[in-house]
Amino acid sequence: MSQQAQRIVLAARPIGEPKASDFRLEDVAIPTPGPDQVLLRTIWMSLDPYMRGRMSEGPSYAEPVAINGVMEGGTVAEVVTSNSDRFAKGDIVLAHSGWQTHAAVDAKGLRKIDPQLAPISTAVGVLGMPGMTAYTGLLEIGKPHPDETVVVAAASGAVGSAVGQIARIKGARAVGIAGGADKCRYVKDELGFDECLDHRDPDLAAKLKEACPKGIDVYFENVGGKVWDAVLPRLNPFARVPVCGLIADYNALTGDVPGPNRAPALMRAILVKRLNLRGFIVRDFASLHGAFLRDMSEWLREGKLKHREFVTEGLASAPDAFIGLLRGANFGKQLVRVGADRA
Amino acid sequence: MSQQAQRIVLAARPIGEPKASDFRLEDVAIPTPGPDQVLLRTIWMSLDPYMRGRMSEGPSYAEPVAINGVMEGGTVAEVVTSNSDRFAKGDIVLAHSGWQTHAAVDAKGLRKIDPQLAPISTAVGVLGMPGMTAYTGLLEIGKPHPDETVVVAAASGAVGSAVGQIARIKGARAVGIAGGADKCRYVKDELGFDECLDHRDPDLAAKLKEACPKGIDVYFENVGGKVWDAVLPRLNPFARVPVCGLIADYNALTGDVPGPNRAPALMRAILVKRLNLRGFIVRDFASLHGAFLRDMSEWLREGKLKHREFVTEGLASAPDAFIGLLRGANFGKQLVRVGADRA
Repeated sequence: MSQQAQRIVLAARPIGEPKASDFRLEDVAIPTPGPDQVLLRTIWMSLDPYMRGRMSEGPSYAEPVAINGVMEGGTVAEVVTSNSDRFAKGDIVLAHSGWQTHAAVDAKGLRKIDPQLAPISTAVGVLGMPGMTAYTGLLEIGKPHPDETVVVAAASGAVGSAVGQIARIKGARAVGIAGGADKCRYVKDELGFDECLDHRDPDLAAKLKEACPKGIDVYFENVGGKVWDAVLPRLNPFARVPVCGLIADYNALTGDVPGPNRAPALMRAILVKRLNLRGFIVRDFASLHGAFLRDMSEWLREGKLKHREFVTEGLASAPDAFIGLLRGANFGKQLVRVGADRA
Repeated sequence: MSQQAQRIVLAARPIGEPKASDFRLEDVAIPTPGPDQVLLRTIWMSLDPYMRGRMSEGPSYAEPVAINGVMEGGTVAEVVTSNSDRFAKGDIVLAHSGWQTHAAVDAKGLRKIDPQLAPISTAVGVLGMPGMTAYTGLLEIGKPHPDETVVVAAASGAVGSAVGQIARIKGARAVGIAGGADKCRYVKDELGFDECLDHRDPDLAAKLKEACPKGIDVYFENVGGKVWDAVLPRLNPFARVPVCGLIADYNALTGDVPGPNRAPALMRAILVKRLNLRGFIVRDFASLHGAFLRDMSEWLREGKLKHREFVTEGLASAPDAFIGLLRGANFGKQLVRVGADRA
């Protein structure tokens, strides 16, 4: 039955770490686009840590995915049929069509991608949301001066790898934190960070001190947990902490976290060191999209900015790949190849 | 013996709340000023919560007071003898000469006060460090827009009372938190805050929700503790939190604070609500001193800005007054009258 589509829905809200049974793969009919809609065939699907937030209820910056609703997410897709003058059959577009092989979506939410400029998968990676998260958070909140020290965790991942490389481009010292020797080698040798530390190192705090002899001026917070605990004492006066993610805590926040209560010490550090902690999500800086695309494309062309993709094959691979992403099993930007480049 | 001076030194580092025996009053000879120094006779001495930090060792933005060292603090003093061309006998100056009746200090650290412009005690109050802390923290970090809601605790105190009144001047809604019905009445009826809540109210969280029907956009953090716990859930997206003090926590930070650990939830709130928390001390904004004096003097003259002083008499009253200040026993800017206006 070639007219069959597939989608993955949220079967149950996870308690702690998501498991395979929290997702359900469904066979459905290919939808029919309405007025001003297009039918999309998904080629690439992005998996990102923020999706863990969408699986839970409770206050967040976006509505949670409904039970039995399609899992949310950014995609690169081909237009199969179009009821819009803005898009033609065969166009490649950036969409937010979620975990499914096909989707009928409003044309107004789509952005056309030029396959001549860069591999289309980069539209959900280094030239997409993760790249822009790195670019805006580092430059608008972190504001590293030359010779300052920037620390970022998940340094081989989509956001972290861009943060450290942009820091280097701006003349700062970049220290990455990643999981395991292979990733650390890649971050230092391939991406050109000044140092990279293994977060599993029992001696992380001491290693961090050694790697940052002049303290830490910018900590790009995308993981939380023990890395944040190690970083906090090393922050310099007036350090900036853009907070874009807390992947280590995403699975842990269902109930009370055992003491001691570190919040008063955190507030005291903010006061005494005059820290600036600021949460953000990429759409807060939507007005910078043009500058982002211009700078990042140029750095890519000049070879100053490298990126790495970590691909699993087929829509059905998404739940395991996502669970792995939250554990740090990916090595580079996590993508799912849902369909061929051309049908 | 009229040539006798007195001073109060730090006798012991307090564990938790300071007690009288942590201080020692000493009779000493009146010092002789050296080259480019002046001899000062203290008239007013300011007591401020930050002094609790100076009594402890450990990382802070300033060195602790040494054991047997004179307690630190801002003063308004008369020049008794001068070895500097910049000051003459009889000049009134703002100094940082600490808890003592007399001091020989370098002329370069002093600023002349014009007794014609305002009562000289305001130089350590509404026109001094506390006023400037309120002005700079609120306007440079808090940045309240008209119709936004600003919350401040210790609202009858030197900093809090200015924060709320400046917020009102800028068109924002001001909600104060203070200790007891008398202070709350004063904050609302005399200072013109829109609301004032009693922090001892067992139902503070619910009252705060009621007083801030559109949430909280700026929380000027000068107390920490339970007030902060009540405020955090009510902060709006993109709320700003200038952090200038944590008076409720000053006495409690000698060891671990019992759980649950609220730090992950705090970081999550920063992320999800895109909060901006920024610590500061007044000297970080030294370049704004001219604008501060101009605006605040004008608001005082126009009657838009009121202030209240809480005076104890004599240097020997300082330890008890300071211990009271940390408990909220003062009602207005805490001052010690150390000497007469004119000798």
